Amino acid sequence: NKPLKIAVIPGDGIGTEVMPYGVRCLEAAAKTFGLELSFQTFDFASCDFYDRLGDMLPPDWKETLAGFDAIYFGAVGMPDRVPDDVSLWGSLLKFRREFDQYINLRPCRLLAGVKCPLAGRKPGDIDFWIVRENTEGEYSSIGGKIFEGTDRETVVQETVMTRTGVDRVLKYAFDLAQSRPRRKLTSATKSNGISITMPYWDARVREMAKGYPDVAVDKYHIDILTAHFVQRPDMFDVVVGSNLFGDILSDLGPACTGTIGIAPSGNINPTGAFPSLFEPVHGSAPDIAGKGVANPVGMIWAGQMLLQHFGFQDAADAVLGAIETVLARGDAAVITADMGGKGTTKSLGEAIESEI
Amino acid sequence: NKPLKIAVIPGDGIGTEVMPYGVRCLEAAAKTFGLELSFQTFDFASCDFYDRLGDMLPPDWKETLAGFDAIYFGAVGMPDRVPDDVSLWGSLLKFRREFDQYINLRPCRLLAGVKCPLAGRKPGDIDFWIVRENTEGEYSSIGGKIFEGTDRETVVQETVMTRTGVDRVLKYAFDLAQSRPRRKLTSATKSNGISITMPYWDARVREMAKGYPDVAVDKYHIDILTAHFVQRPDMFDVVVGSNLFGDILSDLGPACTGTIGIAPSGNINPTGAFPSLFEPVHGSAPDIAGKGVANPVGMIWAGQMLLQHFGFQDAADAVLGAIETVLARGDAAVITADMGGKGTTKSLGEAIESEI
Ligand SMILES: CC(C)[C@H](C(=O)O)[C@@H](O)C(=O)O
Ligand SMILES: CC(C)[C@H](C(=O)O)[C@@H](O)C(=O)O
Repeated sequence: NKPLKIAVIPGDGIGTEVMPYGVRCLEAAAKTFGLELSFQTFDFASCDFYDRLGDMLPPDWKETLAGFDAIYFGAVGMPDRVPDDVSLWGSLLKFRREFDQYINLRPCRLLAGVKCPLAGRKPGDIDFWIVRENTEGEYSSIGGKIFEGTDRETVVQETVMTRTGVDRVLKYAFDLAQSRPRRKLTSATKSNGISITMPYWDARVREMAKGYPDVAVDKYHIDILTAHFVQRPDMFDVVVGSNLFGDILSDLGPACTGTIGIAPSGNINPTGAFPSLFEPVHGSAPDIAGKGVANPVGMIWAGQMLLQHFGFQDAADAVLGAIETVLARGDAAVITADMGGKGTTKSLGEAIESEI
Repeated sequence: NKPLKIAVIPGDGIGTEVMPYGVRCLEAAAKTFGLELSFQTFDFASCDFYDRLGDMLPPDWKETLAGFDAIYFGAVGMPDRVPDDVSLWGSLLKFRREFDQYINLRPCRLLAGVKCPLAGRKPGDIDFWIVRENTEGEYSSIGGKIFEGTDRETVVQETVMTRTGVDRVLKYAFDLAQSRPRRKLTSATKSNGISITMPYWDARVREMAKGYPDVAVDKYHIDILTAHFVQRPDMFDVVVGSNLFGDILSDLGPACTGTIGIAPSGNINPTGAFPSLFEPVHGSAPDIAGKGVANPVGMIWAGQMLLQHFGFQDAADAVLGAIETVLARGDAAVITADMGGKGTTKSLGEAIESEI
């Protein structure tokens, strides 16, 4: 029974503020359920590191992190100091790509005690998963500029979809849909406008669906799909999308359930060949960083997904239960401003920790 | 004083159902304000036409339509009969491209009498414009497939942004923002993930902003921007985005104000070299087509934008006033199901017509 080795990367901004509570909640769960977890913290993948060393990562980052079972990640980005494309492609997006974390899994649930911006929705009404392709698609690094600095200046960037890449994320999404009571899968597309990659995506969905006769499949163009997220969020069970569409939907979905501050995500390599990475959906939020008021729930819930990923179901249930209990209590002195409270990262983080 | 020549293209599905009321309202406004409008209706740009002739358009479509001052357009697409990329690239997207309608302008307003899916928002709280690039960007037709039918199958599609294309839409958006009391422009980007075209877009925004020191500019990545549409829709004044981002935001925005059934759009060629095209934001909606229950407001409001485009301000105000009056009345027997009523296209269309 070796301990689970977890690499802790707080990153930038509120990432560094919520991470301590994430770790404390994992430690509390480990203690209660007799799990052995070991943590090692790294200062790379941050703009501080970049300022000192001119790069987001040290040269040996890959061997270093490959020795861990999982990566527990805060948030990266300080656009006033390092352009976002440099900081993100130099860290998080590199991890996803090089560790082949081809699934980005994000729950979207309306919890008791969280104020919903949609009229008339109650806890339980919204409860679905977003499965996002996480290694290819619109997030390519291929392209460039021609006639630079002239009126003819033209910039081109490729979207790339491979059969391997599309099929494996669809398979994961179909399997997930099949495992749930409603057995419903919604595919995000835009094949009416984006006429090469997106019709291909649709064709692979049709092909994959043949192997899952018990899963009800529908598809919507991304424009109207965002409208349905607002108007009929109860209709979704599992939603699958490309890298970009999954990105958009997984901010919009949590916003519809109250705040993206509570939303977690798993960047998963289902083969286990490389470590998976667990992080909150929110970013480094430079605007509120340094004030100690960031919502720690996304970070803590990401820890819950980590536990679940390794099959520690009891511990995972305890963490999610603690989150739900504390939020349902709705104590304004405890919950953070994004949920309408006056609490701090500390008050909310500690309340959940002691509940575990 | 020659009459304004309007080409009427109903298209498919509910496009054919709402168009008659659009034309009747324009005729009513023309009568009241002494405008001369002439209408000629075309059956092309429809899947019926495609079924008969194997193409969405006749060979001489361009000369034919170029002879008109404006195109009044319903909706295209019957995906069970013609794949969406074929029907749309064969009609609407071709018009936008070949008539260089490089601005897609869409209002987003919460009107009295329209039930809002967002909690606690009242009429007037939401009132902004979306300016969408309408000819390039993600809607390219460049790309293809390699290793077809094998496991190595790979599909590639280009996003193309030109300085001309980006600058002219930004200029239009900055000018519009400058003309409004709040003077605020929000740019949609995704430069942290889409690392070639989107940083270019941001750089052009920064450059253009230098010429508009009195306009307050901010930018958000598209993922969090969709979240803000739901959580803080009152913060927007003018929002500018690429072809795809503008497409997404202009379905999401109207959904946040109640229904996309009321939303209009102008596909504008500001030079006047070719006719501009006015259409509802909604599509052909095959699921409700043939029942006579489609909301005609998007179509009628598109006619209002047409009048405004040609400087017929009194007539335009009368049409928008009539829409507002009838919706504010909120008579359930008149308004359509998407707004919570039991009315029909006819009841709502005629109520607005007689109000004009
Ligand atoms: C029908 C489709 C191709 C079109 C688009 O994506 O531009 C529509 O969604 C729109 O917004 O006008
Ligand atoms: C920070 C950014 C590059 C990232 C993404 O676009 O994937 C984030 O928005 C996310 O959703 O994890």
